[in-house]
Amino acid sequence: MQDFDLVIRGGTIVTVADTSRADLGVKDGKIAAIGTGLAKGREEIDATGLLVMPGGIDSHVHLAQPAFGGPAMADGFESGTRSAIAGGNTTVLPFALQSRGTSLRKAVEDYHKEADGQSYCDYGFHMILTDPTPAVLGQELPALVAGGYSSLKVFMTYDDLVLNDRELLEVFDAAGECGALVMVHCEGYDAIRFMTEKLEKAGRLAPYFHAVSRPQSVEREAAHRAISHSELTGVPIMIVHVSGGEAMEQIRWARARGLKIMGETCTQYVSLTAEDLKGLNMDETGGKYVCSPPPRDRESWEAIWNGIQTGVFQVFSSDHCPFFFEGELGKKNPKARTSFRWVPNGIPGVEVRMPILWSEGVVKGRITPNEFVALTSTNHARIYGLTNKGSLAPGYDADIVLWDPERRVTISQDLMHHGSDYTPWEGFQVTGWPEATLLRGELVMRGGEILGRKDKGRFLPRALSPMAGRHGGAALD
Amino acid sequence: MQDFDLVIRGGTIVTVADTSRADLGVKDGKIAAIGTGLAKGREEIDATGLLVMPGGIDSHVHLAQPAFGGPAMADGFESGTRSAIAGGNTTVLPFALQSRGTSLRKAVEDYHKEADGQSYCDYGFHMILTDPTPAVLGQELPALVAGGYSSLKVFMTYDDLVLNDRELLEVFDAAGECGALVMVHCEGYDAIRFMTEKLEKAGRLAPYFHAVSRPQSVEREAAHRAISHSELTGVPIMIVHVSGGEAMEQIRWARARGLKIMGETCTQYVSLTAEDLKGLNMDETGGKYVCSPPPRDRESWEAIWNGIQTGVFQVFSSDHCPFFFEGELGKKNPKARTSFRWVPNGIPGVEVRMPILWSEGVVKGRITPNEFVALTSTNHARIYGLTNKGSLAPGYDADIVLWDPERRVTISQDLMHHGSDYTPWEGFQVTGWPEATLLRGELVMRGGEILGRKDKGRFLPRALSPMAGRHGGAALD
Amino acid sequence: MQDFDLVIRGGTIVTVADTSRADLGVKDGKIAAIGTGLAKGREEIDATGLLVMPGGIDSHVHLAQPAFGGPAMADGFESGTRSAIAGGNTTVLPFALQSRGTSLRKAVEDYHKEADGQSYCDYGFHMILTDPTPAVLGQELPALVAGGYSSLKVFMTYDDLVLNDRELLEVFDAAGECGALVMVHCEGYDAIRFMTEKLEKAGRLAPYFHAVSRPQSVEREAAHRAISHSELTGVPIMIVHVSGGEAMEQIRWARARGLKIMGETCTQYVSLTAEDLKGLNMDETGGKYVCSPPPRDRESWEAIWNGIQTGVFQVFSSDHCPFFFEGELGKKNPKARTSFRWVPNGIPGVEVRMPILWSEGVVKGRITPNEFVALTSTNHARIYGLTNKGSLAPGYDADIVLWDPERRVTISQDLMHHGSDYTPWEGFQVTGWPEATLLRGELVMRGGEILGRKDKGRFLPRALSPMAGRHGGAALD
Amino acid sequence: MQDFDLVIRGGTIVTVADTSRADLGVKDGKIAAIGTGLAKGREEIDATGLLVMPGGIDSHVHLAQPAFGGPAMADGFESGTRSAIAGGNTTVLPFALQSRGTSLRKAVEDYHKEADGQSYCDYGFHMILTDPTPAVLGQELPALVAGGYSSLKVFMTYDDLVLNDRELLEVFDAAGECGALVMVHCEGYDAIRFMTEKLEKAGRLAPYFHAVSRPQSVEREAAHRAISHSELTGVPIMIVHVSGGEAMEQIRWARARGLKIMGETCTQYVSLTAEDLKGLNMDETGGKYVCSPPPRDRESWEAIWNGIQTGVFQVFSSDHCPFFFEGELGKKNPKARTSFRWVPNGIPGVEVRMPILWSEGVVKGRITPNEFVALTSTNHARIYGLTNKGSLAPGYDADIVLWDPERRVTISQDLMHHGSDYTPWEGFQVTGWPEATLLRGELVMRGGEILGRKDKGRFLPRALSPMAGRHGGAALD
Repeated sequence: MQDFDLVIRGGTIVTVADTSRADLGVKDGKIAAIGTGLAKGREEIDATGLLVMPGGIDSHVHLAQPAFGGPAMADGFESGTRSAIAGGNTTVLPFALQSRGTSLRKAVEDYHKEADGQSYCDYGFHMILTDPTPAVLGQELPALVAGGYSSLKVFMTYDDLVLNDRELLEVFDAAGECGALVMVHCEGYDAIRFMTEKLEKAGRLAPYFHAVSRPQSVEREAAHRAISHSELTGVPIMIVHVSGGEAMEQIRWARARGLKIMGETCTQYVSLTAEDLKGLNMDETGGKYVCSPPPRDRESWEAIWNGIQTGVFQVFSSDHCPFFFEGELGKKNPKARTSFRWVPNGIPGVEVRMPILWSEGVVKGRITPNEFVALTSTNHARIYGLTNKGSLAPGYDADIVLWDPERRVTISQDLMHHGSDYTPWEGFQVTGWPEATLLRGELVMRGGEILGRKDKGRFLPRALSPMAGRHGGAALD
Repeated sequence: MQDFDLVIRGGTIVTVADTSRADLGVKDGKIAAIGTGLAKGREEIDATGLLVMPGGIDSHVHLAQPAFGGPAMADGFESGTRSAIAGGNTTVLPFALQSRGTSLRKAVEDYHKEADGQSYCDYGFHMILTDPTPAVLGQELPALVAGGYSSLKVFMTYDDLVLNDRELLEVFDAAGECGALVMVHCEGYDAIRFMTEKLEKAGRLAPYFHAVSRPQSVEREAAHRAISHSELTGVPIMIVHVSGGEAMEQIRWARARGLKIMGETCTQYVSLTAEDLKGLNMDETGGKYVCSPPPRDRESWEAIWNGIQTGVFQVFSSDHCPFFFEGELGKKNPKARTSFRWVPNGIPGVEVRMPILWSEGVVKGRITPNEFVALTSTNHARIYGLTNKGSLAPGYDADIVLWDPERRVTISQDLMHHGSDYTPWEGFQVTGWPEATLLRGELVMRGGEILGRKDKGRFLPRALSPMAGRHGGAALD
Repeated sequence: MQDFDLVIRGGTIVTVADTSRADLGVKDGKIAAIGTGLAKGREEIDATGLLVMPGGIDSHVHLAQPAFGGPAMADGFESGTRSAIAGGNTTVLPFALQSRGTSLRKAVEDYHKEADGQSYCDYGFHMILTDPTPAVLGQELPALVAGGYSSLKVFMTYDDLVLNDRELLEVFDAAGECGALVMVHCEGYDAIRFMTEKLEKAGRLAPYFHAVSRPQSVEREAAHRAISHSELTGVPIMIVHVSGGEAMEQIRWARARGLKIMGETCTQYVSLTAEDLKGLNMDETGGKYVCSPPPRDRESWEAIWNGIQTGVFQVFSSDHCPFFFEGELGKKNPKARTSFRWVPNGIPGVEVRMPILWSEGVVKGRITPNEFVALTSTNHARIYGLTNKGSLAPGYDADIVLWDPERRVTISQDLMHHGSDYTPWEGFQVTGWPEATLLRGELVMRGGEILGRKDKGRFLPRALSPMAGRHGGAALD
Repeated sequence: MQDFDLVIRGGTIVTVADTSRADLGVKDGKIAAIGTGLAKGREEIDATGLLVMPGGIDSHVHLAQPAFGGPAMADGFESGTRSAIAGGNTTVLPFALQSRGTSLRKAVEDYHKEADGQSYCDYGFHMILTDPTPAVLGQELPALVAGGYSSLKVFMTYDDLVLNDRELLEVFDAAGECGALVMVHCEGYDAIRFMTEKLEKAGRLAPYFHAVSRPQSVEREAAHRAISHSELTGVPIMIVHVSGGEAMEQIRWARARGLKIMGETCTQYVSLTAEDLKGLNMDETGGKYVCSPPPRDRESWEAIWNGIQTGVFQVFSSDHCPFFFEGELGKKNPKARTSFRWVPNGIPGVEVRMPILWSEGVVKGRITPNEFVALTSTNHARIYGLTNKGSLAPGYDADIVLWDPERRVTISQDLMHHGSDYTPWEGFQVTGWPEATLLRGELVMRGGEILGRKDKGRFLPRALSPMAGRHGGAALD
């Protein structure tokens, strides 16, 4: 006989597969049953009028990353994951960033120190490789991948992170050997430096010129290059945070040729534009919107929606990368006010990802609720090897968001739970909002109030991605 | 407290969303619960080692269609639906074919006479419009659509069925008004006639020349034309039975432009080729493979798989259209032996659709089991308005196939339950086979044995397709 | 020793190949020499400051076509060819239009009656096939093609002209047999009828709705269809008067696949827009711009220029098809004022084709003077089998335009020599204008004054087009 | 009155514009007249049965380039230009290669020492930039461009030549400022290194693996990257020696977007394949075919022909880059026999370029004789600023090839005039061969016999390319 710790009763369960009126019973933190007329649980939640959906998985967030000569992030794990659960998420996948000259294992250990015991939700780590030495690729990487760190990210830009093509190829190749999934930040370093110096020389220093310094062609070129490296090595890649039609079309083209290229897009690319970066002078608010790639324009929004609707993009993430706006370490710190080049890159968004996608996507008829679940949760779990996450079915972790599809909210900083002192979506109106979040069967957020504890989130070792491995590649004979 | 008529225990439940080890409880023909440790049911089925998946929905089958001067079909509803459940299906969507000069309502009524009380599985009807008079489009169609016949099909070829462009546009337009989903058979009538006469004049009469008479460019042209009509009227369409890369690329192109074009492909287009139509003379077996569009070649198979993997195709059907091979009414009837032109078009396939897709798709690593469910069941239900079908969730009809993923079978006519005297896949080897089929909770097939009754299948009035309606179209000002 | 009837001295000779300062000597109506320091001719023309270019060949003009229930054209051969030479042309290729039920030979004879002795410049005839009976295709066509009428045109729209797909295929096939070059007017008849009735029902009757009734998708669909027929039969075609990017991209796509598809565009598609068709009411001037396909928009201009620059288009024509604006037979005749449907389709343009292409193309840096010669003369001659025309080289007819590249002119009706009572380019400013035209060595226009005579133009039997014939096509085995 | 040093009489003159039976009179090394019945010249050449075409311009040849640790070239200017005139050429454009750390001016001076007084035909220099310092880009380059060295080449691969993306962008930008035309060798250095080491590690060392180490995707990636840099800076580029469909399609794509990208292909890409590089061991003849990019396959030939026919390629060159096969410095020198990596890259081809293009192109019906002239001469002159070269018109240099279109020749080393000890086309049969070559009116080759002198070739300062400059580029505001 069934014996539930908790029953969520009266809601409408939405998965990628279907929508059904049913109760959901939880036992030992896992989903035990979904059905009608389930036995009474020790606890009950009335979900009448709410959607019961898998908790959000945000596979692209940056937390507690170091300063690199710029200001530190506004979110460590405590505030970052607090913000995540407030936004309906139950798992985040931040990054463990290798510093050049240090070991990858060390990076992972350092980030564990930041995260362990400090996280309101479950978490895993992608590794950022900045120093792909033979020892890193040959020994550390396979061991770490086998140990549950089954994905890595490489950068094609940023002084401290950029890999050259040879390094990219070596990383792809090594990832193919050990089954790691490769995420790629596609923007061309040299082109950005070239444009940046040209703009600075011309006295175009305001935050807006951040967007001018990296037009879509720069992102597209890097995407094509990464795709070509993937083709040569036969190693699938995920091209992250695609901002518009130019890079998107490269992914579509690659997929049509049979290459295993995946795509991610983010909240900002369907809701912000480069115009948001404009301001009268260096003191203005443009810096609040500086992230990379930069938001583009409304035509790009339409391209991104088309990419979502036609399967070019499998995941929708936040690329949460929070900084302060004010203060010595903020986006308008003294150095940042001398040139857009020094404005910290990144915006906070983990908390608004789901509401904005629901509002702009589902409410406006662009995607179905089931597709919403795929884009915010299930596909992240499948692609990144989170075998017990991302859906509502017996045996899966009871990671759940109770969603009010009708609730109208005007986003503002005072609603946010993140560490930043602003939100780029101040005043943005949405319909649809998370009413409650449950992590492994425990209520951790309800009505905007945090009920969880920062020592409740668990580290998630992940399985190999079913999308990773080796598929073809250039012949050697 | 839960009280189950039936519990399927110990299996692995596969939906589009997830894969989980769980039991499934049925009450009153509907799924009541999915969970671990469900209470004992009045009946129990041990599904250990089996996959528990939504029963197949084959949205493209022809049953009991009249002779039109050619031979009658080898399957009426009795044998056709028997074959369907033997192949793991629980719902079929055959066609109610309007004869020119008669009303659409009359066609629907006639087909009900054929089907009602004669069906082993549930069924609905697409309407085939051959005579789109103002009365048909203005009165009959909206009433029938509202009454549960929410989709229709039009043909761009065949003497008795073909609509000209003006008629197609009128039908699309009317469908947009009343929310009917439009399916289109895309092959160019005039081009086929032109080629046929050329071939006949050259003495090229054998069945193989059926394939020669309608090359891919003829299918592609019609697909482009249908897409353009869809664009002009703003009415989404489903392009059915796409056979290769040429038409497929048109759909991809249209979707990339934001048009609402859907695609279907079929078993034969990933497992048969035009070479199968070859034979030494008119007596040979080539006629067994005559269907339209004809199977192409292995390169086309790869194109079709790419279309499946990149979302160009949402549904995988059989286009079951069975004829006898031998006898006065068979594919080699006396008239048919005078020219390929008279060989009845169509092949039986409802019974092997799921095994072949599993074997060629899942076993060979081209799709996941979850994608298999989408392609064979869930997407058919969503697109065609079968609101209680196509997934495994509380409240849904307990339409289930128990699937043995390991079973190896060599397809042969003696295994088939259809009315035809042959199968085009004689000798084709598959891994994966339906062990049992349940229709609304009742076992209707087990181990190849038919347990159901021909009066158990129910007619399914269908909701409007969420994909249908009006989306844009040419401006009028 | 050389003995010249005429020497053009001091000009700059421009051909497709080169630009050179040289004199040009004429003997017996043919170019005898191009060189420096040529012996004195019996006559001399001082071309200092002028460009000496091959006389324009306008391969797409309509003259003296009958009324078909609408008004007759504003130009017969006399006024039409007078306008042509005023615009720098020395050859025109109008059409001999077959009436249904009559023979093709008869059409050719009838048009000869209109043209012979009435033409200021040389001329040939394309045949318009409206009734492709076996006798026409099997006997008349080959004989006429062999007799110098080596090209034909078919229409995919217009009540009196339209061929269905079967007829198009038969015509293409017959043309392939006898080496005729096929020109195709690509717009979908049924789609236009559908839109027209929809617009009329909605009371949208003004001339502007002519453009609304045939959007680019209608032209693109027909282009794709014609290309597919070309592919099936293996017979090259020229798609005429392409109006924008949609149809243009189809040609580009076909050429990239190795198909022998050629393209023509016209003056109006880089200088007029659909906005020009707008007017406050049925009396307004919108009707002056009614032609098919209709002019589009400025974005389409850019697409057309791209097509010119990348070789999608080989020829630039006028599609001169002149009607009166005022009067009982004019564009605003009583019937035409009841609906855009009855406004005569076509505009006069043979006289301004060269100045507008020079001004918009050469002066604005989009094409070179050499490319101008290719687009206005040489390519017309090559494609349409005018072996002695279209370049400046010994043995070629001395058909020459002396061009003032600097002259600024504001186009207006009082400058025109055509029969129409208006020009659609009234007020349009150009730089570059023909100073003089020579037909086979005789001055026929100078400074806007007509010096030629209407009995001086000769009929030109043409060789087979080197682009025509049969190239591939669908296999028959 | 005309007074000719030489009259070529009775031939058929072929230019890009036209084909005409005429005589050609030369005075002071320049064409003075083309006409019928020209006055007798001091010398006469009977060209009956021959085509009179502009002498070939080969804009891509390497002569006298230094050893760089590998063997020196088999051709200095003397033997290289002797080979050129034997093959019907009258102008070559070799390269002046800057060594890193030295000035560009120095490179140009050094190459002048090699060339001046040692050349049988006229010549100019493209500069190869390997060290784009601010001084080079800011001072030397503009001065040299103004002085007649109006084009430059950059490499995306080769240890001693490769520029990184930043350097490429700086060079493009500087070229845009001073109007230099940029040629780009597109192959990705890092990808080649990666593949090379992989192959060497696997013991795949034979010459054939040269082709395996740089598949088409490596060339395509670099082409896309170069195009993106062109787009960002707004500076047109010529992508040289395109070997197959992959890179070709990038150029087509770029041109369709309105970017000013030009393309060159070479003899080897329509007549050799990677199979030619195969040999049983390191002693075998595969090394004779090692060049970069490597020849591909027959499918690539078709892609290249399509690119030629649709205007993707404007010029057809040899990329003559000759080495010895035998001996200490030959392609199978001791080091080269240890790995394909050390086999000198390049093949001799200046002498067979025109015959092979005529034979494979004109004789086989893929191009016209006029297009042959464009591809081998006129377009080179136009694009590279050779204002008096590349056509037959008064005032142009009398650089002429008398072509026997019927002559059948089996190419063999004993027919060649180059310095190499082999030809890659040994045994290749062609129809069409240069009967005589005239340089500025003087016979320098007749019937395979060299009549010219190595001090007759002149250096050609060139005008700015009309295709160069700045066209758009990324906005800076």
